[in-house]
Amino acid sequence: MKIAVFGTGMVGPSVAGALVKLGHDVVVGTRDPQATLTRTGAGPTGGIPFAQWHAEHSDVSLATFAEAAAGSELIVNATNGDGSLAALRAAGAANLAGKVIMDLANPLDFSQGFPPSLNPVNTDSLGEQIQRAFPGARVVKTLNTMNARLMVDPGSVAGGDHSVFVSGDDAEAKTVVAGLLADLGHRDIIDLGGISTARGTEMLLPIWLRLMGAFGNADFNFKIAR
Amino acid sequence: MKIAVFGTGMVGPSVAGALVKLGHDVVVGTRDPQATLTRTGAGPTGGIPFAQWHAEHSDVSLATFAEAAAGSELIVNATNGDGSLAALRAAGAANLAGKVIMDLANPLDFSQGFPPSLNPVNTDSLGEQIQRAFPGARVVKTLNTMNARLMVDPGSVAGGDHSVFVSGDDAEAKTVVAGLLADLGHRDIIDLGGISTARGTEMLLPIWLRLMGAFGNADFNFKIAR
Repeated sequence: MKIAVFGTGMVGPSVAGALVKLGHDVVVGTRDPQATLTRTGAGPTGGIPFAQWHAEHSDVSLATFAEAAAGSELIVNATNGDGSLAALRAAGAANLAGKVIMDLANPLDFSQGFPPSLNPVNTDSLGEQIQRAFPGARVVKTLNTMNARLMVDPGSVAGGDHSVFVSGDDAEAKTVVAGLLADLGHRDIIDLGGISTARGTEMLLPIWLRLMGAFGNADFNFKIAR
Repeated sequence: MKIAVFGTGMVGPSVAGALVKLGHDVVVGTRDPQATLTRTGAGPTGGIPFAQWHAEHSDVSLATFAEAAAGSELIVNATNGDGSLAALRAAGAANLAGKVIMDLANPLDFSQGFPPSLNPVNTDSLGEQIQRAFPGARVVKTLNTMNARLMVDPGSVAGGDHSVFVSGDDAEAKTVVAGLLADLGHRDIIDLGGISTARGTEMLLPIWLRLMGAFGNADFNFKIAR
């Protein structure tokens, strides 16, 4: 499948690399490709400079959000939550129409310090905001409840015995996403319902952050025991 | 231990019955014992009428919030979230001073319909509100992330292989609560930190409610795979 991955922090390159390994045709979308390639420091969420990662992944191309979206069937939103709507607007509604947007972002609000709170929260979610902003796209919220490594290597914790959630209004889009999740190694894929259920998964972040604090690492995941 | 359980809905009697079985001296606290005993319908959260339950549990006494708290070393708050502060105020700060309050309530807000949202949320929690209102008490948030049956019979789902959380500012109080949890059969007790981490566990309710919707039952629990 032709897939655009938006975001050049920790999550985007991790997911892009894994999708290429699965045989997909992957382009990373960014606001300004030249600026992204000349960035030498780690991104705001850590990781190696993008140019170094890109040199090791010549099979992944780099393009503007609009170019990347135009040539793809599915878009992975791995931008920071506070930049997601701007990135998708830069891609352009016409380039998103009819396409699946796999939304991995969390609306973390660092304005009150660490650990961050959420905005929106409780009676709205980033997943819903994206779906409302791009009614022609088919948004599926998923993978936002675990760290970047686990997203693409679920077997690295507890033998992969944990859960991933999908929320979205379009059943076919959820089937496409569930297929990708299964290819990545996820075994317990729970369909929560429509995109408004993204409120539930985004609101897992506050406990996720505190578990990371308690354990001193991010090598854990939620499992729904039943 | 002398324990007061506040609340006569689904959760209170379930927890009271389990604590009596463990050998504790348990009194159920309610606003108006006579009114509670004459109630014939199911409570707002379902279950049998309290009088019927009480007839089958003559080893549990019934008293006002104040009487129950005055004679107890530990108070279990199993009232509805929107009535918790009023119940504890009725008990009286002097009757709560120095005591452990095991807070099981969730601040569910049904004003926008079902599924409920939370209030407070995100930058505050009911657990913190209770601790602020009764600075002399030692609040430990716990058990609010699972259904009433699982609280007292964790082995009934997935052989008990799931997690329970504790949040609180007082280390000794958390040790007392963890002891009770272990006696009830909980094996994976995760200390998240201070009472502000109750934000994390209360914010599990939105996904809990949607999982109940997706599964059609409440026989599941969160496990932190690691």
